[in-house]
Amino acid sequence: MAAVRAGVPEHGRVPKYYAVKAELETLLAGLGAGGLLPTEVDLAARYGVSRATLRQALRDLLLEGRLRRRGRGTVVAGPKIEQPLSLGSYTEGVTRQGLRPGRTLVGLDRTSADGPLADRLAVAPGEALWHLERVLRADEERVGLESTYLPVRRAPRLDRDFDPAGSLYHYLHEQGTVLGGAEERIETVLASPREALLIGTPPALPMLLLHRSSRDTAGAPLELVRTLYRGDRFSFTLDLGSAPTG
Amino acid sequence: MAAVRAGVPEHGRVPKYYAVKAELETLLAGLGAGGLLPTEVDLAARYGVSRATLRQALRDLLLEGRLRRRGRGTVVAGPKIEQPLSLGSYTEGVTRQGLRPGRTLVGLDRTSADGPLADRLAVAPGEALWHLERVLRADEERVGLESTYLPVRRAPRLDRDFDPAGSLYHYLHEQGTVLGGAEERIETVLASPREALLIGTPPALPMLLLHRSSRDTAGAPLELVRTLYRGDRFSFTLDLGSAPTG
Repeated sequence: MAAVRAGVPEHGRVPKYYAVKAELETLLAGLGAGGLLPTEVDLAARYGVSRATLRQALRDLLLEGRLRRRGRGTVVAGPKIEQPLSLGSYTEGVTRQGLRPGRTLVGLDRTSADGPLADRLAVAPGEALWHLERVLRADEERVGLESTYLPVRRAPRLDRDFDPAGSLYHYLHEQGTVLGGAEERIETVLASPREALLIGTPPALPMLLLHRSSRDTAGAPLELVRTLYRGDRFSFTLDLGSAPTG
Repeated sequence: MAAVRAGVPEHGRVPKYYAVKAELETLLAGLGAGGLLPTEVDLAARYGVSRATLRQALRDLLLEGRLRRRGRGTVVAGPKIEQPLSLGSYTEGVTRQGLRPGRTLVGLDRTSADGPLADRLAVAPGEALWHLERVLRADEERVGLESTYLPVRRAPRLDRDFDPAGSLYHYLHEQGTVLGGAEERIETVLASPREALLIGTPPALPMLLLHRSSRDTAGAPLELVRTLYRGDRFSFTLDLGSAPTG
């Protein structure tokens, strides 16, 4: 069995940028979160590589959230925010990490349900929907983008008395609609230019995309949510408590 | 509020490659899963862009799993595999999608617990551990890489009577060790060159990385697992059934 594994390096050479990335990882561990990285010129000289090679290694570390730009410099990033996969709100997860959560309104529009949206929300085609779009923030940094479709009849006055910096679930709860459960799907995608602009990230940054179909306590579809989280800043956690059935 | 949203396009121009990507998405929808894409030369001419611009759009669609290489051609990809976040095995999730699951051994080595591993597994530093590494397959395609650390005392004969194509949990169950629960953390990372080589993907491909710390029915740490799934082929699903407490 060792032969199978030993065979791997024979077929694959380690690219030079990756060797530099490994060296940089050791350097980052030594500097600690918030530590300032030496300049590109210094680092290229230190590892004896071209600036193009060095930049490829830095790019990987930036995309993975190991490094962050700060002003004109580059610093060692802290750990990713751990967002629990639960019915709890965005606020809860971020607060638990000692960060200040925030939401900024991008838009609240009245639209109507086309075929697929109507099916998934179990409303008639053409029924009025709210489309609420908000940027998610943690300590003033933009970290995600949330897009929600909700039938207008669930919250007819949303455009008049909802504070877009607050929790939609809290607001709905006050109106007598209580979240009962949700189906979620998680995938990794690239940000579109519009999304990258709104969140302020490079377009190539891998994002975590969470699709949620939520239901009320009677099991009726409530809303559809699409939340894009910066892949370099977020991870999701969950606890699986019970034994498998199959 | 509409003004906030309407302001976005003013500040950000849509890059040319992204406009082509949007055109290609319409084309893919028309072709359907498995449909063969026209050549790069034809597509560049059709959309009036350079081949470099066209390739950037194709690259995005490949990374996102919307397109797949097949032989010398490029075809429209089917939907991503939906892997339930549960204590159930890899086999279950893949089988449910109508695919044939498989695992190929990369290595089974006897190693010893260093400080962090010992802490997380609640064993003495230096205690013997198995390190089991397997490539995950779906219909013969390599789709992931799983790396497991398990104390040798949990399965002293693992190297002699365990079939690496089978389920480790089934094997442990036969030995009287039953999985009781797990903590999981999900993030997106880039594959390392070694991982990309083992899974057969381009190194820049965003992956979904699932860290699992599992425990037995008595709550004692059982194993540590790090599973890398191709981000273009997998998504995770879960059902959140109960109301929030906070």
